[in-house]
Amino acid sequence: MTRVNRRITLAARPLGMPKESDFKLVETPVADPGDGELLVEVHYLSVDPYMRRRMMDVPSYAPPVGLGEVMVGGAVGRVVASRHPRFQEGDFVESMNFGWQEYALSNGRGVRTVDPKLAPISTALYVLGMPGMTAYFGLLDICAPQAGETVLVSGAAGAVGLLVGQIAKIRGCRAVGIAGGDDKIAYMVQEAGFDAGYNYKTVTDHAAKLRALCPQGIDVYFDNVGGVITDAVIPQLNPLARVSLCGQISSYNATTPELGPRFLTHLVIKQIKMQGFLVFQFQQRMQEGMQQMAQWLREGKLVYRESVVRGVENAPRAFIGMLRGENIGKQLVKFAAAQ
Amino acid sequence: MTRVNRRITLAARPLGMPKESDFKLVETPVADPGDGELLVEVHYLSVDPYMRRRMMDVPSYAPPVGLGEVMVGGAVGRVVASRHPRFQEGDFVESMNFGWQEYALSNGRGVRTVDPKLAPISTALYVLGMPGMTAYFGLLDICAPQAGETVLVSGAAGAVGLLVGQIAKIRGCRAVGIAGGDDKIAYMVQEAGFDAGYNYKTVTDHAAKLRALCPQGIDVYFDNVGGVITDAVIPQLNPLARVSLCGQISSYNATTPELGPRFLTHLVIKQIKMQGFLVFQFQQRMQEGMQQMAQWLREGKLVYRESVVRGVENAPRAFIGMLRGENIGKQLVKFAAAQ
Repeated sequence: MTRVNRRITLAARPLGMPKESDFKLVETPVADPGDGELLVEVHYLSVDPYMRRRMMDVPSYAPPVGLGEVMVGGAVGRVVASRHPRFQEGDFVESMNFGWQEYALSNGRGVRTVDPKLAPISTALYVLGMPGMTAYFGLLDICAPQAGETVLVSGAAGAVGLLVGQIAKIRGCRAVGIAGGDDKIAYMVQEAGFDAGYNYKTVTDHAAKLRALCPQGIDVYFDNVGGVITDAVIPQLNPLARVSLCGQISSYNATTPELGPRFLTHLVIKQIKMQGFLVFQFQQRMQEGMQQMAQWLREGKLVYRESVVRGVENAPRAFIGMLRGENIGKQLVKFAAAQ
Repeated sequence: MTRVNRRITLAARPLGMPKESDFKLVETPVADPGDGELLVEVHYLSVDPYMRRRMMDVPSYAPPVGLGEVMVGGAVGRVVASRHPRFQEGDFVESMNFGWQEYALSNGRGVRTVDPKLAPISTALYVLGMPGMTAYFGLLDICAPQAGETVLVSGAAGAVGLLVGQIAKIRGCRAVGIAGGDDKIAYMVQEAGFDAGYNYKTVTDHAAKLRALCPQGIDVYFDNVGGVITDAVIPQLNPLARVSLCGQISSYNATTPELGPRFLTHLVIKQIKMQGFLVFQFQQRMQEGMQQMAQWLREGKLVYRESVVRGVENAPRAFIGMLRGENIGKQLVKFAAAQ
């Protein structure tokens, strides 16, 4: 019996906001694993903002996805055949390299085993995976928030942002979030325990709003968004503030170079640190981050929310929706094998 | 005998580049020190870029100089009368608080004794003073340059910039400078030992020039200037680069808010740290910095150059010339008492 692998390839490099026609569903036979390989039946695919930049043919930390190639993406699934010494049929595994497809053939590099008894396997793509580690190290390592400080998060209802605010609360900080919807603010404050938040789509005077919600100023800013929101935040930062640059989603669909107010003088006179990071730079410390996040999860100190779309064929739609900010929490695609 | 104190006060808040008419020479009687005070006859005054921002009535790390008040400034001189237990007549002393005047009355706060046998007393305003510590901590503490890395300095022929490049060389780095004059580049390379440099006034394609002079990319950028130079540098930074923001002299005379290209995505994908600082934040470690700089000076590993204008009445001209980039190295004003 030949199984069919349905996969999503990059059909065209998007101009501005991606369209469904920038992707193509392709069917190929599922290959058998060769020596040292394993075959994974994917249950959940993660769609994340970084993928938008991987679709662009510009210099970055990794080469772009080629036209006609399977879209890159982290996923979790079950090993259905293995000729790799580390993995056995039936193991649940996660990797950033499985891609947007129902079956992934892997040489085992960057693949880790996931314990389904510890937590639902989808958490390997969120709290106990890349977004969780991004929030953990991006906040704690880069910004070293101290109890009593005010931590502001942009993109605060997204996968990473929701965790950042909760970790800030665990550390005794005031957590304030910016997001694009009243439902998002309600979730953030009522469920995730943020102290305050505001819907940037209904506010014109960001500075006044920030002053009202952060009466002691802003000590830590975790930025997922950039653009006009970050422009408004910078003058409100306290002396010795720390800024963690996780993403700049507001500019990922820009089709021309964007201008903004110059702000480096603010950084000088307020002795501010601003640092960009990729979660990979904390590779050696993943164990620490995973253990801590798992403990907080068990203790009920972290809540999380998944937005789930079904079927590999709907991965482009899920991705575009995430870029448009339609989800709260982690946007996942649940494949047929998981049903 | 009543001595006369000639002092320079701020007569008007400059719009754009300061003019001599923004300052006023005022004569007052020299006061006798009261209990706990000392009177200093100033020999050298330092004029520095930070003073331009202190002339502006905008929020900053310190209140602005008031209209009619003596301009702030670091100076070195001789104690001519003391009723302060720590200082005796004849001592040489330095302080950031003496200001633009021939005689300074002080309560001793922020005043340190200078040993004239160790080095010429003017070095207390340069290599063994605030600019020296700015270069030392701003480069070594914030950027941690490693042997073999490329260190780029803007404003490289100014007081701080010339020291930054030399410290980078001592640490085994490639030192490259940007400055505004062929004579400055010649001094930088031939006397101060920089590996390379270029005159930004004669270059239109900064990116090409930077690629040619920094073939391994830029690991550390020490920025005194900002503006279009920094715009050009950022895309050339290597992954994990560190940027020390010391000053933004290109914008200090701006009369309207300035726009520039957004660049935070570069910081994210290259995991770059950018940090503003003020030398005061290293107050607790000044001894360490002073001892190291003095040792390098004794060992002949650091050269320095002073540009000297004579007479307190010419301090405004010296300051404006420094802002225009007319000096190489440290701009000082030598007062009558030192002749």
